[in-house]
Amino acid sequence: MGAVIALLTDFSSADSYVAEMKGVLLTALPAVTLVDITHSIPPGDVRSGAHVLRRVWRRFPEGTVFLAVVDPGVGTERAALAISSGGRWFVGPDNGLFTPVLDAADEILELPTPPGASPTFHGRDLFAPVAAALAGRTAPRSLGTAFTGAPVRFEQTEPHYEGKSVVGTVVYVDRFGSLVTNLTPELVPPYARIEIEDVDAGPLRRTFGDVPTGGLVCYIGSSGDVEIAVRDGSAARRLGMGVGGRVRARLG
Amino acid sequence: MGAVIALLTDFSSADSYVAEMKGVLLTALPAVTLVDITHSIPPGDVRSGAHVLRRVWRRFPEGTVFLAVVDPGVGTERAALAISSGGRWFVGPDNGLFTPVLDAADEILELPTPPGASPTFHGRDLFAPVAAALAGRTAPRSLGTAFTGAPVRFEQTEPHYEGKSVVGTVVYVDRFGSLVTNLTPELVPPYARIEIEDVDAGPLRRTFGDVPTGGLVCYIGSSGDVEIAVRDGSAARRLGMGVGGRVRARLG
Amino acid sequence: MGAVIALLTDFSSADSYVAEMKGVLLTALPAVTLVDITHSIPPGDVRSGAHVLRRVWRRFPEGTVFLAVVDPGVGTERAALAISSGGRWFVGPDNGLFTPVLDAADEILELPTPPGASPTFHGRDLFAPVAAALAGRTAPRSLGTAFTGAPVRFEQTEPHYEGKSVVGTVVYVDRFGSLVTNLTPELVPPYARIEIEDVDAGPLRRTFGDVPTGGLVCYIGSSGDVEIAVRDGSAARRLGMGVGGRVRARLG
Repeated sequence: MGAVIALLTDFSSADSYVAEMKGVLLTALPAVTLVDITHSIPPGDVRSGAHVLRRVWRRFPEGTVFLAVVDPGVGTERAALAISSGGRWFVGPDNGLFTPVLDAADEILELPTPPGASPTFHGRDLFAPVAAALAGRTAPRSLGTAFTGAPVRFEQTEPHYEGKSVVGTVVYVDRFGSLVTNLTPELVPPYARIEIEDVDAGPLRRTFGDVPTGGLVCYIGSSGDVEIAVRDGSAARRLGMGVGGRVRARLG
Repeated sequence: MGAVIALLTDFSSADSYVAEMKGVLLTALPAVTLVDITHSIPPGDVRSGAHVLRRVWRRFPEGTVFLAVVDPGVGTERAALAISSGGRWFVGPDNGLFTPVLDAADEILELPTPPGASPTFHGRDLFAPVAAALAGRTAPRSLGTAFTGAPVRFEQTEPHYEGKSVVGTVVYVDRFGSLVTNLTPELVPPYARIEIEDVDAGPLRRTFGDVPTGGLVCYIGSSGDVEIAVRDGSAARRLGMGVGGRVRARLG
Repeated sequence: MGAVIALLTDFSSADSYVAEMKGVLLTALPAVTLVDITHSIPPGDVRSGAHVLRRVWRRFPEGTVFLAVVDPGVGTERAALAISSGGRWFVGPDNGLFTPVLDAADEILELPTPPGASPTFHGRDLFAPVAAALAGRTAPRSLGTAFTGAPVRFEQTEPHYEGKSVVGTVVYVDRFGSLVTNLTPELVPPYARIEIEDVDAGPLRRTFGDVPTGGLVCYIGSSGDVEIAVRDGSAARRLGMGVGGRVRARLG
């Protein structure tokens, strides 16, 4: 039952980059278990990376090391971090990617750039060796120094009230075309009706099967927030809507 | 040599869903070996899921647990099943996905929905915990009750005779654009000529190299059925043909 | 700490083929660690396969077995090989895919086709069993015979001089749209200016952050060769350029 390293990047699995990192990890720590979270974060889209990390990290066992590299600022002055939070370690760039784990963080180390590291591939030359060392139980403080700055943090967009409505935002669109919003269940009582643009999507339902095929359906998604889908179809395509779209819950 | 859990879904690897399931599996059973069959089944396409399952399941070692979730009816009345067949376990929805393993099944359990399960993500909250329990050798009957219904089963489309021809159907198109048909080798003697729409694709050959580059080639595919390809090209694109297309073998 | 088998194919992860191979490997060698390099090599593009292999192989631990199958000539007279090089084994077709490891090769075996092997899927029926045997420490010479021919080898395209310029070629385009060239750092002194078609891309920089967002940037990529990117964008799209495109470094 070796250590687990979970990888999240925007490298795609088509190029050599992910495999180069895995080679480094396996060379350093042959018994490690490697798990791909995803390598399909849109290029440079740190916010989407943070969204996926938010959804998954507490599902993994304590002791997991997360190697998360969505790093458009690689090689610049942005800091390189290892963050201990909730019994796991998170290794990657200081650019907001780790927003979901900062509140629970109990230690943040700033990592030096090793001599000879490629200025465009810290994932392989800086972050992977540190992730392997942490997974192999190297003393963390031998790997970096206490980070004295304030780590970069994304502001959460919060829903707001407009008259008798609460207005939220689409924060993620998944492969099914389901729209994940920032509306929480407490904000949307059973009598509320949900509107996207001028389209009535009805009240909150329990699951897709509660509407006919092709119908719009609002429900508490598996993340715990309000989502909008089309049964056996794509809400994103039907409504022409993506991240940033506005969603209104009419309360009266 | 821990247990193996093999995953097949339509979740794609781009979102968080697969990783959420893997986190659940690793938390329950740290020594498990996780293998991705595919997460690229077209959304909700249960038949394609069944096709891939049919091709792979006997290649995996006995004792493997298959966690297969193509589940457009999630949260509705469709049953949740664990099926023992051919020395392996299959966990997922009762919607035809498990058609390939039903004939050899020796035990079928119906699984209860755990309290608090997300009505839209049984993969994470219902099926993954059961798969981990089975892989960890929990007594199966503690996980569910004998399923007394008839599991959903896809009818196989069968080839039929039309005069001096046997007419089959394209059942799958792979990434190379090769057309997998339901014609079996016994139906297509060496003297038969194969036609797609009105295009003559010649007799059965042994492999791609038996025709010039760009040529149509019919052969016994690696599944054992008749396939049609274009050497170094795509038969699907060349012929404008997909699943359901008709293929004729002229016997005289 | 079991053996590692690293897989590189053009099968995509969407079909059943990769999983069929993994089933064979796990059945033969239950304790093996399987690592995906990539399955997204463009169909039949042996040169891209060789490029990715060149980048990754030395990153993996000694003892790793590489199962590499980009094999448009499957079932024809092309030889099937197992190559020992640099302390690793490489198993796959003799079509140039293994060019990067031939210089260091110390043993090359020709592999027989097992009776009953599908003529269109040697990855599953010929190469995977050999990879599992090698990873399981079967005596290599029991698996094949000394290969007496000259393995297929891609010529490297070399940069050449034109007056006061050195002219190279784009050899790979990655998912970020970065253009990897065959220009090495020794050929491009600090005073040189790089041109693509008639566009001036400036001198070599250290990393993306050395130009404004949207700017063209040339730098020593993580493979050690000269690359051209657009900061937070795609150089391939901006310049309409792909593999084979010409890149000029003006030396005076």
